[in-house]
Amino acid sequence: MIEGLSLLASSMPDLSVFQYNAVDNIFSMTVATMGAAALFLYMSRAHVDPEYRPALLVSGIVVSIACYHYFMIRHSWHDAYALVDGGYKGPGAAFNDFYRYADWILTVPLLMVELVAVLRLPAAKATSLLTRLVIAAAAMIALGYPGEVIADPARWTERVVWGGLSSIPFFYILYVLWTELTNSLDSQPPAARKLLEIARLVILITWAVYPIAYALGGTPDALAAKAGTADAASGIVGANGVVGLQIGYAIADMTAKAGFGVLIYLIAKAKSTKSGEAAYAA
Amino acid sequence: MIEGLSLLASSMPDLSVFQYNAVDNIFSMTVATMGAAALFLYMSRAHVDPEYRPALLVSGIVVSIACYHYFMIRHSWHDAYALVDGGYKGPGAAFNDFYRYADWILTVPLLMVELVAVLRLPAAKATSLLTRLVIAAAAMIALGYPGEVIADPARWTERVVWGGLSSIPFFYILYVLWTELTNSLDSQPPAARKLLEIARLVILITWAVYPIAYALGGTPDALAAKAGTADAASGIVGANGVVGLQIGYAIADMTAKAGFGVLIYLIAKAKSTKSGEAAYAA
Repeated sequence: MIEGLSLLASSMPDLSVFQYNAVDNIFSMTVATMGAAALFLYMSRAHVDPEYRPALLVSGIVVSIACYHYFMIRHSWHDAYALVDGGYKGPGAAFNDFYRYADWILTVPLLMVELVAVLRLPAAKATSLLTRLVIAAAAMIALGYPGEVIADPARWTERVVWGGLSSIPFFYILYVLWTELTNSLDSQPPAARKLLEIARLVILITWAVYPIAYALGGTPDALAAKAGTADAASGIVGANGVVGLQIGYAIADMTAKAGFGVLIYLIAKAKSTKSGEAAYAA
Repeated sequence: MIEGLSLLASSMPDLSVFQYNAVDNIFSMTVATMGAAALFLYMSRAHVDPEYRPALLVSGIVVSIACYHYFMIRHSWHDAYALVDGGYKGPGAAFNDFYRYADWILTVPLLMVELVAVLRLPAAKATSLLTRLVIAAAAMIALGYPGEVIADPARWTERVVWGGLSSIPFFYILYVLWTELTNSLDSQPPAARKLLEIARLVILITWAVYPIAYALGGTPDALAAKAGTADAASGIVGANGVVGLQIGYAIADMTAKAGFGVLIYLIAKAKSTKSGEAAYAA
């Protein structure tokens, strides 16, 4: 068990200059996007009614945490490769997958908090909802991680088992969010309704990326390519797989955190009724 | 296709100490300008009426993103050259053109948002206008990038095709902005009218720099110089071309983002009617 988990970080296939730079650049762009979203969310609190400001503060915290982790992920990417003979060879140090899980452990529960906060449900309902969602989110991430770090192609079925277990709280969360958002629509002002429908779709689409990426990264071929034991042909497939996985995660994170945060702001703005000094005194 | 795109970053001609430092210094000055503009725009929100503060916040976000990217561009410049025998030789690592495109992907749509926000058009009109502008901006940047990364002199006609395709949304945006700004003049207070006419001109002049720089950087001679396959004479032209391109982009970015942001502030100030605590409560 310990041996299996000893690869906290993935070993990586060789990449072309194009493949290496594509991932490097999307990581930098993600740092910029998360940082910009954090500045926007912190400062735009002054532009909504006071009761919606905690939702924007939490949204800002989420993208700040993500900004830090993408900065660290990018450094880990640099450390994992060296330019040799016109191509990038790995591994120098191994690329650290844990940053992404650390980010999810901290930010996924906070994403639930920002959504529930902007809905402004009755207190008892909000507490019950949040308790269930946060426990499910923790279980989802904790169960996914042991599978993610399995790099031995012979153990891919174990990866499937952890992925399957992690999917139970995953689908539970999606079900709860979808039904609660749908139920809450009637009690929301018309201007916010359309935005909440968009938020519901953003959650469904961006969250779908994570299990798909997990599945694609866990086929025996992909694992063999990561382990460097695959032949040349599947090695190229493996390299493209790694590049697609990293870019896919980055785009999903930008949408699910920065894009979702801006949606939370727009919902808060649509629900804000005060104007003049009261709303802008902060 | 993939081979053509494999140079996500340009290879660069040798530069004199003067040429290298000229670019290095303008990058540093751009970081300072963008950072200073960000501080001004964030804090000057308190000096305008509440309804204009989101426009200033978005303007501040734009220059913050540009500040980050020029910091990264300057580091990439340092990595791309080494001082050898009294001159700067490239490439060490290749200079990364993508930072500039990442910056544009994020900031050009936000520039549209800050302009529409300060005009305070009716909501339905603002939404329709922004949707068209943001889609066109994304198409413009996405179509320009495949051409920008072509470094093979034999493929310069492909560069022309991408540039031509990118020009369609570019001219569409300029046309929409020009006509909408012109139409909006009558509904704006007299004090803001003159400033909006200046904003119209700033957009027209600074935006013209980008296609001109793209065209100058894409002649067969310029590409040959970048690829290091040109003879000495066109090599000097190529080096001057690279220096001119980088300085031109930097000056255009400072004007189109920091200068434009200050214009947005002046327009907001001219349109602000409240005085005393009501306007200054923040």
